[in-house]
Amino acid sequence: MRATFMFRAGDVRVQNTPDPVLRYPTDAIVRVVRACICGSDLHPYHSLPETPGGTTMGHEFIGVVEEVGADVATVKKGDFVIAPFAVSDGTCEYCREGLHTSCEHGGFWNDTELGTGGGQAEAVRVPLADGTLVKVPGAVDESLYSGLLSLSDVYGTGWHAAVRAGVTAGDSVAVIGDGAVGLLAVLSAKQLGAEQIVLMGRHRVRTDLGREFGATEVVAERGEEGIARVRELTGGRGVRRVLEAVGHLPAYEQAVGIVRPGGVISRVGVPQYRDAEIGWPFFGKNTTLTGGPAPVRAYIEQLMPAVLDGTVQPGRVFDREIGLDDVPDGYRAMDERTALKVMVKP
Amino acid sequence: MRATFMFRAGDVRVQNTPDPVLRYPTDAIVRVVRACICGSDLHPYHSLPETPGGTTMGHEFIGVVEEVGADVATVKKGDFVIAPFAVSDGTCEYCREGLHTSCEHGGFWNDTELGTGGGQAEAVRVPLADGTLVKVPGAVDESLYSGLLSLSDVYGTGWHAAVRAGVTAGDSVAVIGDGAVGLLAVLSAKQLGAEQIVLMGRHRVRTDLGREFGATEVVAERGEEGIARVRELTGGRGVRRVLEAVGHLPAYEQAVGIVRPGGVISRVGVPQYRDAEIGWPFFGKNTTLTGGPAPVRAYIEQLMPAVLDGTVQPGRVFDREIGLDDVPDGYRAMDERTALKVMVKP
Repeated sequence: MRATFMFRAGDVRVQNTPDPVLRYPTDAIVRVVRACICGSDLHPYHSLPETPGGTTMGHEFIGVVEEVGADVATVKKGDFVIAPFAVSDGTCEYCREGLHTSCEHGGFWNDTELGTGGGQAEAVRVPLADGTLVKVPGAVDESLYSGLLSLSDVYGTGWHAAVRAGVTAGDSVAVIGDGAVGLLAVLSAKQLGAEQIVLMGRHRVRTDLGREFGATEVVAERGEEGIARVRELTGGRGVRRVLEAVGHLPAYEQAVGIVRPGGVISRVGVPQYRDAEIGWPFFGKNTTLTGGPAPVRAYIEQLMPAVLDGTVQPGRVFDREIGLDDVPDGYRAMDERTALKVMVKP
Repeated sequence: MRATFMFRAGDVRVQNTPDPVLRYPTDAIVRVVRACICGSDLHPYHSLPETPGGTTMGHEFIGVVEEVGADVATVKKGDFVIAPFAVSDGTCEYCREGLHTSCEHGGFWNDTELGTGGGQAEAVRVPLADGTLVKVPGAVDESLYSGLLSLSDVYGTGWHAAVRAGVTAGDSVAVIGDGAVGLLAVLSAKQLGAEQIVLMGRHRVRTDLGREFGATEVVAERGEEGIARVRELTGGRGVRRVLEAVGHLPAYEQAVGIVRPGGVISRVGVPQYRDAEIGWPFFGKNTTLTGGPAPVRAYIEQLMPAVLDGTVQPGRVFDREIGLDDVPDGYRAMDERTALKVMVKP
């Protein structure tokens, strides 16, 4: 089959590779119907060192089950499934608490221990299929693909940001970042009843979609100017909940600057830094910092009904569809920001 | 009157200074019955630059109201009162939310804007007396002084650590630091129903008191060894709630090392650092960091009854009583760790 590999920063190739086969009785083989490229794939796209043999890419996909191992009980051949961006057994202490990204037997799609391939491919071996995959009920119309695909990562990740931040009815919220996760954090905050949603971003097409998702104000300024602008919009106090969906240090510093005393910063952008400000400016106002890799598996069943019945359209973050062989162009387009989020049809 | 001033690191003096007088109609003058020296006073004791005229010291005291301004309604001459370590109006948006340390009109005892003196003195002008002071009901026996004094800071601060961490029945908790706040964080975690309370400290007399307050295990090791030991005590997973009551970087790093995935680090030790690890080791396990200067004012009414009826004895953290003129020796004793917490009788 064809699958995507990255060999070093900027070097993405789609190559022939052996078809995946069942390795354990808990495995399933899923034929990919749609996959996508993630904002977080751009981090290795900028920084991956020379990697002989390449590293397998893609952690978001929906597809049809082709084959299951003897111990798989919850999905069967022919089922339409969503694969979250993390593999999880669904039974360990962490999974039972809804923290599937810390699963004791799980891992990520490019996890060498799990030995599985990425989702930007024609098919994938899914370990721990009962814990990992979620069956979509009924017949699945193609018009639903983008929304269902968003449940594999970006929608659940935006939702995680809002849930961890404790967004509740009447809240003031700021979302930092107008990528797919940021926009879906806006949508999530809106669903949770936030009254004021300030979206910090500077790409007009994206922030326009953010407004449709529920943003009440858009702040294009960054740094001290951006902080001053958000303070101005919140009576000088700052916002109660900051959802940080970027992962770079300036975004975090912005979050510290705009959070209200007693407020929460919830990060879902994978931090591209190690140390950052948690001294007096942060501590003195009793700030809470939370978030992390979203256990999207915990949210899929809850979020899926409104996607299926069209109440929400998280799939609108996909603004380009390409074939598998065009994946390298898809990376380039997302890197150059000519595409917001690229869907891949193998 | 006599009052305590610090002129530079290590240089504490008790001097004559004018008696405090009412300046605003919302002020009260309180004659100090007992004050104390705080672990956080040791930070300037180590680092204060040359300060001509000196800086006023002490932020914890109990006393008797001597005089009140025309607008003061909740306390009157002769009342026995507890003064929390922060001044607050009790009416602003933050106070109404219980975040008195962010009061829009308040501040700290050595706040030059408030222009008040510290508590290590014979008397203090208390701004915003209605918001700040809490009247102790009934006759107050001398045996209660230490417990009531602990409500002005260390007990409320330990309580804040536990409350912000979300300690609940059956929880696993670790407390880092065997100072007065750490020990009272142990007591607070116990009151909130924690099942396992690991106290990290190496001063036997202190950790013994910690055991009496509810610690189920004591870990004297620090750094990697300490982390390994706590992991061993928690089935390899780490603790759900870490209460950090030190404020130095190694204590924070220890907290990150021992916190369970999905767990909380709650800091109440004033951080003596600016930047620290909040990258993948922290983010990857969905750690929450919270805490800050404790709004002890919010907790006094709730915690006082058990102090008055002897259900808890937080005052046991005071292991030495000195006169006001001996305050410089008190600082030395706490710095050399020959005293845990020093009570001052003016």
